[in-house]
Amino acid sequence: MASWRFYCPKCGFRGDKGVYHPFCPRCGSPLRIEGGDPVDPSISILGEGDTPTVEKTFRGVKVAFKLEYLNPTGSFKDRGASTSLRLARMLGYKCVVVDSSGNTAVAVTAYARALGLGVRVHVPSTAGPGKLALVRALGADVVVWETRDEAARAAIRESGECFYVAHTFNPVFSLGITPLAWELSDYDGWDFIVPVSSGSLLLGLWDGMKRAGLRGRLIAVQAAEAASLKGRVKLLAEVGGDTSKLADALVVKKPPRLDEIASAVNDSGGGLVIVGDEAIKSALKELLQMGFIVEPSSAVAWAAFTALNEASEASDSVVILTGSGLKYAERIREITARQGKG
Amino acid sequence: MASWRFYCPKCGFRGDKGVYHPFCPRCGSPLRIEGGDPVDPSISILGEGDTPTVEKTFRGVKVAFKLEYLNPTGSFKDRGASTSLRLARMLGYKCVVVDSSGNTAVAVTAYARALGLGVRVHVPSTAGPGKLALVRALGADVVVWETRDEAARAAIRESGECFYVAHTFNPVFSLGITPLAWELSDYDGWDFIVPVSSGSLLLGLWDGMKRAGLRGRLIAVQAAEAASLKGRVKLLAEVGGDTSKLADALVVKKPPRLDEIASAVNDSGGGLVIVGDEAIKSALKELLQMGFIVEPSSAVAWAAFTALNEASEASDSVVILTGSGLKYAERIREITARQGKG
Repeated sequence: MASWRFYCPKCGFRGDKGVYHPFCPRCGSPLRIEGGDPVDPSISILGEGDTPTVEKTFRGVKVAFKLEYLNPTGSFKDRGASTSLRLARMLGYKCVVVDSSGNTAVAVTAYARALGLGVRVHVPSTAGPGKLALVRALGADVVVWETRDEAARAAIRESGECFYVAHTFNPVFSLGITPLAWELSDYDGWDFIVPVSSGSLLLGLWDGMKRAGLRGRLIAVQAAEAASLKGRVKLLAEVGGDTSKLADALVVKKPPRLDEIASAVNDSGGGLVIVGDEAIKSALKELLQMGFIVEPSSAVAWAAFTALNEASEASDSVVILTGSGLKYAERIREITARQGKG
Repeated sequence: MASWRFYCPKCGFRGDKGVYHPFCPRCGSPLRIEGGDPVDPSISILGEGDTPTVEKTFRGVKVAFKLEYLNPTGSFKDRGASTSLRLARMLGYKCVVVDSSGNTAVAVTAYARALGLGVRVHVPSTAGPGKLALVRALGADVVVWETRDEAARAAIRESGECFYVAHTFNPVFSLGITPLAWELSDYDGWDFIVPVSSGSLLLGLWDGMKRAGLRGRLIAVQAAEAASLKGRVKLLAEVGGDTSKLADALVVKKPPRLDEIASAVNDSGGGLVIVGDEAIKSALKELLQMGFIVEPSSAVAWAAFTALNEASEASDSVVILTGSGLKYAERIREITARQGKG
């Protein structure tokens, strides 16, 4: 019998042992887990995790690029998809459902296929064609809705019969990220520069750091149009203007786990950098010219480091590069071409 | 002073110590190296090498999928680009030139950028837009020619001033593949199922196997329209028809190093499987449904294993998956959709 259970720190709800809830069935808040890990986050089924690190020095400051974009489906989401879907299978679910149009949808679909689970993906009509084509090629059942909210509601409606991944809420998703901390054990005491949208990457890393005894400040980086941490943590820099259309993977304006994210940043002694399109464009171009083929959203982390370093406020830093540019060949060409040749 | 030199096993040419030649300056044949490795193939500069392995069992036969498509630029070519371009920099070249429209062009460009070298890519007008967009985004100077031959001639013309990668000839390119053998040391005595176009993957693996003391049969897999090994090695199976348009990375009809490739296959006790579009399509679909996001050309290796296994002629096998499907999102969607839903 399972020893773990979900509980709600907000309303006090406590689930039955060994039962999954995507969020609190009483108050709708994000849940936490007590009594141990439902699944082992260190297991790899498609080659996820243990991504390479590349070290460089910029104006005397050391940077370790952590290449999370080299996960099997092209983003750090592989880690959370792996833990979530292994739990789904362990609990006897035959299908999973997810509302996402991006990297999460690709990752969830691939791990569902690897584990023999059916998968339905609810997407808004604004979803990019590249990632959607991948999801379809992998064999997901794709349902297109007018808006993001409609897609989310559809997923929730199906969450009884199927396992609803609910990656912006689900603590099992961020549990999948925790091994990052052991993989980064050479960088004790460094800054960790982490893009934040729903916050699963930052929360999983922070949980892992506490487990692994790894110390360091969390520097959260947010897109200008989704700067949910503004006013909640120390603002370290704001660069590149007010729009952030290029950061199409960093769009969660109200992360369900915002309180936890703010606490983690503050507890680590870290802060926030807000990045807009002009800085994203330059940073993307610089990353490509170092040979890192990342998606535009991933460039925010490099933009943040650059801003801090130019102000002589950077420490030795781990820069987490989150998503692959291979899904974005034409798009990154357009973006970099607009700025002229290097 | 360097101890290595290039020599020509065909006409007897011997180069000066420490001097690179893309091919024999006297007779045009592929060269070999004596006196040690010009560069260390085990060094990683962009996270190349040490790719994951995923094990599964099919009808009682064990398969280890070696995920070479998770190299940083999305194919095994990263390994050869890394050794070649590190040599270029060591020898003081300021620029590199390559004729390729595919994975080699992407890899060479990324490593050139990582090493601070200029890069010019000569491509035929038939080059696919996705990989070309990546090459341009990475900052290569791209020159488009009507035919593949014209592109090759242009690259050769520039090979004095710049380092000509000449990946289908160059033994330093396949030297980069040798570490694969150590990474596969758990699979001593297994079959190694390897797609062959120019043959750098097979030759590098075979060289590495001899160095590492790893035993096993080489099962070369070729696309139906580029089956250069036919008649040179034992034919084990031929499946999927006479056309192989889907295998757009397996198009070298006369590999310069064909004699070496045939010898390696024969010396290993292995053989050849020839694969056409119908088998590639099914194999691609099956790989995607296992969660492996590969390009169509990579599916030939799985088609070959499947053919052997259905004839009860498969042994435990390492199946090398060579290239990423993330560069091909729309294309793999089209291919798999044509065959109906799974």
